Amino acid sequence: MEVVEEEVSNKQIILKEYVSGFPKESDMVVKTGTIHLQLPEGSKNAILVKNLYLSCDPYMCRRMRKLEDSYVESFTPGSPITGFGVARVLDSGHPNFKKGDLIWGRTGWEEYSIVTEPANVFKIQNTDVPLSYYTGILGMHGMTAYVGFYEICSPKQGDYVFISAASGAVGQLVGQFAKLLGCYVVGSAGTKEKVDLLKNKFGFDEAFNYKEEKDLEAALKRYFPNGIDIYFENVGGKMLDAVLVNMRLHSRIAVCGMISQYNLERPEGVHNLFCLITKRVRMEGFIVFDYYHLYPKFLEMILPCIKGGKITYVEDVAEGLESAPAALIGLFSGRNVGKQVVVVARE
Amino acid sequence: MEVVEEEVSNKQIILKEYVSGFPKESDMVVKTGTIHLQLPEGSKNAILVKNLYLSCDPYMCRRMRKLEDSYVESFTPGSPITGFGVARVLDSGHPNFKKGDLIWGRTGWEEYSIVTEPANVFKIQNTDVPLSYYTGILGMHGMTAYVGFYEICSPKQGDYVFISAASGAVGQLVGQFAKLLGCYVVGSAGTKEKVDLLKNKFGFDEAFNYKEEKDLEAALKRYFPNGIDIYFENVGGKMLDAVLVNMRLHSRIAVCGMISQYNLERPEGVHNLFCLITKRVRMEGFIVFDYYHLYPKFLEMILPCIKGGKITYVEDVAEGLESAPAALIGLFSGRNVGKQVVVVARE
Repeated sequence: MEVVEEEVSNKQIILKEYVSGFPKESDMVVKTGTIHLQLPEGSKNAILVKNLYLSCDPYMCRRMRKLEDSYVESFTPGSPITGFGVARVLDSGHPNFKKGDLIWGRTGWEEYSIVTEPANVFKIQNTDVPLSYYTGILGMHGMTAYVGFYEICSPKQGDYVFISAASGAVGQLVGQFAKLLGCYVVGSAGTKEKVDLLKNKFGFDEAFNYKEEKDLEAALKRYFPNGIDIYFENVGGKMLDAVLVNMRLHSRIAVCGMISQYNLERPEGVHNLFCLITKRVRMEGFIVFDYYHLYPKFLEMILPCIKGGKITYVEDVAEGLESAPAALIGLFSGRNVGKQVVVVARE
Repeated sequence: MEVVEEEVSNKQIILKEYVSGFPKESDMVVKTGTIHLQLPEGSKNAILVKNLYLSCDPYMCRRMRKLEDSYVESFTPGSPITGFGVARVLDSGHPNFKKGDLIWGRTGWEEYSIVTEPANVFKIQNTDVPLSYYTGILGMHGMTAYVGFYEICSPKQGDYVFISAASGAVGQLVGQFAKLLGCYVVGSAGTKEKVDLLKNKFGFDEAFNYKEEKDLEAALKRYFPNGIDIYFENVGGKMLDAVLVNMRLHSRIAVCGMISQYNLERPEGVHNLFCLITKRVRMEGFIVFDYYHLYPKFLEMILPCIKGGKITYVEDVAEGLESAPAALIGLFSGRNVGKQVVVVARE
């Protein structure tokens, strides 16, 4: 007779109901259920994991709304929200994973999760770096920066590069990739602390606090008197409008995110798109999911950079699953400095 | 002693002063000056031409404003406006041109012009097609359609193609190129007559009158239930917003013009740019000037199509230079049906 694993308590972050307008901490609630630490019989292809680190990402707040035609699905009210995380496999019905494996990928905001679609779950092979890095620089965000910069921006040495939300998980990496290639790199962020980080820690040539600039167009003109070759777009809205008039001939915009717009009932209008013609700009949206086949190539590039100190990475770590809702909502007020991570368990 | 050519009268269309707001016929005035039909001595590289046909184009009204940072320069108040035309060379100080040559390129809105920068002037070699075609299908507009479609849109057989301002000089050609390639093609225009032209003359699969659609998003959904692979953008504003939500995964937008925006003090806001991410859209502005090296290749493709009846071309011909201001302003009310041309002289 099979030994049935004990039932344990399982703390979860539950979405109360669909959100309209700006999401609040109180749209989520911490509940404690129970779970058997064993997959139900016949759970083919599923894995049961213990969550260790969770990633807080702006796009998650979009998923709290009732979405119709989006690339991500809405969360389910009454159920735990989901996101990227690092976890330990406790039980596996999937041939690629076995008990004890460490993985990163989509999991639940809870202590234990059953992952039924491990197609986008990656086994962690290199553990001589902090495990939490797989929620960011070695996970989806690192890949996003890598793909967005190298595959979309057509970068070359000497290019003038501007990055918005530059101290975030993706922005800080894009800037460092650009510096490694010999570009001139400027980033914008929303606090003095972040601006200092960009200049002193991540090696950006310049950085500015967009909240202190009355005229974003003029600010960009100041930092890019000759214009911008590459804009890595994370924020949208007014910043995009200001960037458009500062683009150079044959420049590129990689559209990665538009955080300033996610919680608006109607996105702001962008008025300066005619610049796409006058400056012959290529503006291209992308989603990292389309490029996961490049993950091994990415690791080959990034791991030596991390170990050799050529790439710096800053995390903002919140302790305990209970702190997760505040950490998530804090992204929109720019509370975090660096990549926002939640530690669920350190094992 | 050299024979000095007679002085003749030279009718000109003069811009009175910089325009703000919507340009009107009365912003231009017809004046009659005189000109010697001979280049002044030492006119190196200049050519003196007799203008035969002139092209009316939306971008010209932008040039009536005081522009600062544009890809085209403002016209000079008090001087004749300029545009694309077909002309006969009467005198030449340029080694590439000689008396009697027919040319197309940038010239003045007047009976006779001295062209001092014939860099973008092309000698007309094939005269077994209507000469006026070199103001459009065989000139800048044909090249724009060719470059925009083949170089920017990455078209392939079976693609769903949407073209706005589709009965215009460029749009009618893009649609026919797309049909030749085996695409499904829908165009929008602003009168029943133009819609009929698109369907019955240019062979579009479908066409609709955008002025009769209360909900452009829904209209596009009706014609493209599976979404749009290629959007050839000629109008901007609300149409672009409606298109964005109807784009397919990995679709392309060639940004050729934004006629609906040219005469607004501030362009309309475009709200749905987030779709660039969700649908992984590449949106690219271009200007035909960058591709003039492809002109011989273009002629090789288009001339047999015209002679073989595979490509149809419709012109709206206004007689006489005096009719030019009304013809130009009429573009914005959609008065013209097909490419708007002005005949200055038939020789």
